[in-house]
Amino acid sequence: MDKKVIAIDIGGTKISLAVVSGGKIVSEVEKFSTPKTAGAILDKILDNIDKILKSYKDGKIAAVAFATAGAVNLDNTRVIGSTGNLPKGYTDLNFAEAIKNRFSLGVFIENDANAAAYAEYKIGAAKGHENTITVTLGTGVGGGIVVNGRLLRGKSGAAGEVGHLRMREEKRFYCTCGHYDCWEAYASGTGYARIAREELKNYPQDKKTYLHLKPVEEITSYDVLEGVRENDELSKKIHERWETMVVKGLISLANVFDPDSIVLSGGMADFVDFEKVQRIMDESLVVPNVNILRAQAGNYAGMLGAALLAEERF
Amino acid sequence: MDKKVIAIDIGGTKISLAVVSGGKIVSEVEKFSTPKTAGAILDKILDNIDKILKSYKDGKIAAVAFATAGAVNLDNTRVIGSTGNLPKGYTDLNFAEAIKNRFSLGVFIENDANAAAYAEYKIGAAKGHENTITVTLGTGVGGGIVVNGRLLRGKSGAAGEVGHLRMREEKRFYCTCGHYDCWEAYASGTGYARIAREELKNYPQDKKTYLHLKPVEEITSYDVLEGVRENDELSKKIHERWETMVVKGLISLANVFDPDSIVLSGGMADFVDFEKVQRIMDESLVVPNVNILRAQAGNYAGMLGAALLAEERF
Repeated sequence: MDKKVIAIDIGGTKISLAVVSGGKIVSEVEKFSTPKTAGAILDKILDNIDKILKSYKDGKIAAVAFATAGAVNLDNTRVIGSTGNLPKGYTDLNFAEAIKNRFSLGVFIENDANAAAYAEYKIGAAKGHENTITVTLGTGVGGGIVVNGRLLRGKSGAAGEVGHLRMREEKRFYCTCGHYDCWEAYASGTGYARIAREELKNYPQDKKTYLHLKPVEEITSYDVLEGVRENDELSKKIHERWETMVVKGLISLANVFDPDSIVLSGGMADFVDFEKVQRIMDESLVVPNVNILRAQAGNYAGMLGAALLAEERF
Repeated sequence: MDKKVIAIDIGGTKISLAVVSGGKIVSEVEKFSTPKTAGAILDKILDNIDKILKSYKDGKIAAVAFATAGAVNLDNTRVIGSTGNLPKGYTDLNFAEAIKNRFSLGVFIENDANAAAYAEYKIGAAKGHENTITVTLGTGVGGGIVVNGRLLRGKSGAAGEVGHLRMREEKRFYCTCGHYDCWEAYASGTGYARIAREELKNYPQDKKTYLHLKPVEEITSYDVLEGVRENDELSKKIHERWETMVVKGLISLANVFDPDSIVLSGGMADFVDFEKVQRIMDESLVVPNVNILRAQAGNYAGMLGAALLAEERF
């Protein structure tokens, strides 16, 4: 019989919980808004674990698995990296100790991007690809890297920060990391909007564009994409600039890792023309071809990946 | 007693051979110019192995280890990637078969940058660093990456092509790989000279600079460095532009791998102000600090690394 694991995804806006077994969610998914204090996060999670355990009285729950924003230590027991979107004190929480004390259950914690990459490798788009990278193109750009079937963790657990590849010679876009011109500053949703604003500002006011229909600050990536569909020149220019930067980062990763595949997930992956990107990649690499794939592990990839890792550990 | 391995370094201009044991060269180093045809390379190498074996009659040679330009297959038995500096047909050579047939010895082949990185990890600057990257700043930019004590090979053996990180948004410098603005096109010796020529071309002819003492096409990186020492403004600008690009690539690698260290080797590493680069890195990373180290495994690092790997295999 497959092991059952309580999997928990902790993000800046919401927390999700479910029972997972063999890479599948086997319970209702419990969701709630992320509490505003670290202590409240812990309490709420403990309460929810308690509730689940009471409905699984036969004791088949093997462990609790966390997918969380932020860097996680090499033992997968503690969050060590700061996580801007989570409340102060979050990295001081000791989930492992609290859960062991109260429920006598083991805990496995992994960074959410890493966990999602592991899910893509085990049950998603990159199934069977022993060397694969999952890049999340969302509000930011995150990544998880699988090398010979194992997650790349680095010396401290912080590896995989693909969003902070440097992409320009001269300074232009400020990045959330406090420096300039990281991949994230261009390839993320935020980057897309920033490219749009810059291009629009430099566009002659008297020249017609679909994007003049809205005030600059209200324009979203969806407006630009609508403009592309309307064959608007400026929209096409913005989109191509974004796409070019997305591809440059993918080429860099492919040349360094020689992976079987790179999986794209996150909201901005919907903006990617996979066929076109694959074609450009095939012409650009110094390593053998790399498959560019659409993520398949779904919205709960982080939970599933963390649960799969926990099943291997416990 | 330590095993003895015949180690061979095959480069575009010269080939070196020696007997290596436990990470040390224990014989004279035999050197000759790289023959002009693939067949002549094989013959010359076989003759030299024969000569060495005759002087080691007690049969203690355990294997033959190659460090070579080009990509090597996952079994470490064949060169599979094209190597511009080596004669046509080089990748068709089957060293393993030829050496097994004639001498009944096992063969281990590794890419020279990978082998050098392994030497730095085992006996050089990165000794004990289970996660470390060696970047060779020479005519080109190469790299070898150690993850959890093992070389990163990728799906096909071609991983570690750090010279082909993409570094610019708008196209500027053409790269040997047929595309634009790879790290190598800026951070290599060739890149340094190119930056110098570009800056000199844009520099007012009537403005004084140390670099006007020579025709543009004759200026080398050493002239620019001399200019830096003479406090020449243009020379300093060129050098800083190069240094900035070197550091950007190092930051990218550090953020993705979270390594213990990055080791710099190759002729252009002599141009690096290690203290300054370390300071910039410490202020720039999203992962914990990474030590920037000067290579210590010496000129024969490739041979030593290949021999160490062969000793583990045979």
